[in-house]
Amino acid sequence: MNTNRRSFVKATATLAAAAPFILTARAQEPQRKLGVALVGLGSLATNQIAPALAKNTRLCKLTALVSGTPEKLTKWQAQYGIPATHCYNYEQFDRLKDNPDVDIVYVVLPNSMHPEFTVRAAQAGKHVFTEKPMANSAAECQQMIDACKQAKRRLGVGYRCQFTPHHLEMIRLSRYEVFGRLKCVEAAFGFKIGDPTQWRLRKALAGGGALMDVGIYAIQGMRYLVGEEPVSVQAFETKTDKVKFAEVDETITWELKFPGGVLAKGATTYAFNGMNYLRGLAENGWFELGPQAYGYGGLNGRTSKGPLELPQVDHFAAELDDFAECILKNRPTRASGEEGLADLKVIEGIYRSIAEGKAVKLG
Amino acid sequence: MNTNRRSFVKATATLAAAAPFILTARAQEPQRKLGVALVGLGSLATNQIAPALAKNTRLCKLTALVSGTPEKLTKWQAQYGIPATHCYNYEQFDRLKDNPDVDIVYVVLPNSMHPEFTVRAAQAGKHVFTEKPMANSAAECQQMIDACKQAKRRLGVGYRCQFTPHHLEMIRLSRYEVFGRLKCVEAAFGFKIGDPTQWRLRKALAGGGALMDVGIYAIQGMRYLVGEEPVSVQAFETKTDKVKFAEVDETITWELKFPGGVLAKGATTYAFNGMNYLRGLAENGWFELGPQAYGYGGLNGRTSKGPLELPQVDHFAAELDDFAECILKNRPTRASGEEGLADLKVIEGIYRSIAEGKAVKLG
Repeated sequence: MNTNRRSFVKATATLAAAAPFILTARAQEPQRKLGVALVGLGSLATNQIAPALAKNTRLCKLTALVSGTPEKLTKWQAQYGIPATHCYNYEQFDRLKDNPDVDIVYVVLPNSMHPEFTVRAAQAGKHVFTEKPMANSAAECQQMIDACKQAKRRLGVGYRCQFTPHHLEMIRLSRYEVFGRLKCVEAAFGFKIGDPTQWRLRKALAGGGALMDVGIYAIQGMRYLVGEEPVSVQAFETKTDKVKFAEVDETITWELKFPGGVLAKGATTYAFNGMNYLRGLAENGWFELGPQAYGYGGLNGRTSKGPLELPQVDHFAAELDDFAECILKNRPTRASGEEGLADLKVIEGIYRSIAEGKAVKLG
Repeated sequence: MNTNRRSFVKATATLAAAAPFILTARAQEPQRKLGVALVGLGSLATNQIAPALAKNTRLCKLTALVSGTPEKLTKWQAQYGIPATHCYNYEQFDRLKDNPDVDIVYVVLPNSMHPEFTVRAAQAGKHVFTEKPMANSAAECQQMIDACKQAKRRLGVGYRCQFTPHHLEMIRLSRYEVFGRLKCVEAAFGFKIGDPTQWRLRKALAGGGALMDVGIYAIQGMRYLVGEEPVSVQAFETKTDKVKFAEVDETITWELKFPGGVLAKGATTYAFNGMNYLRGLAENGWFELGPQAYGYGGLNGRTSKGPLELPQVDHFAAELDDFAECILKNRPTRASGEEGLADLKVIEGIYRSIAEGKAVKLG
């Protein structure tokens, strides 16, 4: 086990010890919940994040709203009891700095807008949590990291899976070498995308297609199972619908090589359902999540010894409470800006490999 | 559905109708079982094929032996009641032509020897069944096909999976589009190889490593689920043990593109256990075999609607009885020399893609 892996095992152990506390120890509630401003009131905010903040978070709550649609603000104000003084449009966004009820700004906008609103939130003196992908380029990720560092504010990325018992168990099985040395990771996430007019199919907004949107979960999974940064990538693109996917990628498969010799095979698609797994193949056995490895509606999995019996959690409450706890206890988040940057470097490598038609080096 | 697919659906339908008959209709036993000469008495012949011929085949039986090891011949003679007149070494092999108790020669030698003994068996007037891979090159496959055609003898390849209810069901689900149009196939087969001195690790004998030995099952699976010949391939090799795998490939992943737009992702390895699946992802659901998709110790699988409940069969008895029936009823075998040739063309494409470091066209 190299130093990199060893230090991660240590971090994982700390987190594994902390996780039950985070999920259950309601007796030690802090006096004040941290306030969250939601930026972008689309379907993820509407159906997942706001309900999580209303019902399931212990350490934070919804205190402010940012939207370009006045009707949404009116509706949400009533639904969540947010005062009009705590509702903003994008021009008014920077006034958040004067709102003491907002500690965290959660950016849930289309990908291309993450950098601008992350930087502006940090400059307004707020901690920032941004949806994944963190940005459409590694260079922008770095700017976001720098801006938060300069403002002395925390930056987190919405990698919700890393806060679920299922993914924590996969990480534990891999890093503690419960089934021996890890040899291979197979990870894929895809779905059949609907509405052809949505922003996810516009390159200027989404930065890319399936790879940026859901393939990133498989890349994350590979990186946190292996605990190293990949050294090379070879990728392969297939496009069957050149109209719907005129601007962005439809289906991509890739292979990553890691310094310790682990091979990782990945795939992502917007063309069909059913690819949804994260699998570690080790010297003496295997462990996998699937057929639901990444969805927030409930995860499942098994190992070569039998099924995984683990509790389901609200992914959004788990990631937000962890971020709040990082602020309150002054500890680093595992879903950091640096993690987001590392994934974007792999994504850029995948696109480069496709463009050049050959394997490319990373890092 | 193009003509190619339609004709295959027809063939599959015929076979699906025939399969229960083959497996159960013992009342219609023929008068004489076809005689099989086993060439090469290694572990597969010893532990699988001979027991299948002794216990489970209805249309053929073991009648002759070919081996370079006199002790083996003596032992097998006693064990299977084979007369000394029906035992041969490799120099005596061609005398098989004078043995009326031998109808089929089953070549179970190291890969590199399949062509020579297939051609010699055909020239001795016998039908030939050869283990997979059929040969170490497409050119040799063609020579074997030509030799059998010239001798007016049948040629079959040991693609046992295609005769199991599990694989037949996968083919049915795919070709009849039970879950809608097929979009993607994921197939992989690998295992951790033991004894470093075995012939499978010698390039001159094996022709290649994991890809030639077990990756070929995944290639077969892709081809028979899609029902088309692939048009391009991109492959990627990883080698972590350069001593053990000095001569042959250790781990290879690949992507095949098919003319109708289906993408197939494959992998094979000699470095670890656990990769053993065949999965079809279609428009409205998925169907898969695994975690035992190819082993002869029992298969399992499921679809997006639930588990596959299918009978287990003796793979070797099933393939040999089918081949005997092809001879007796004068019908073509689905595990033909042409099938073996088609797989070798893909394998050569995979090695070419690895050598050139880019995607290559096939066919």
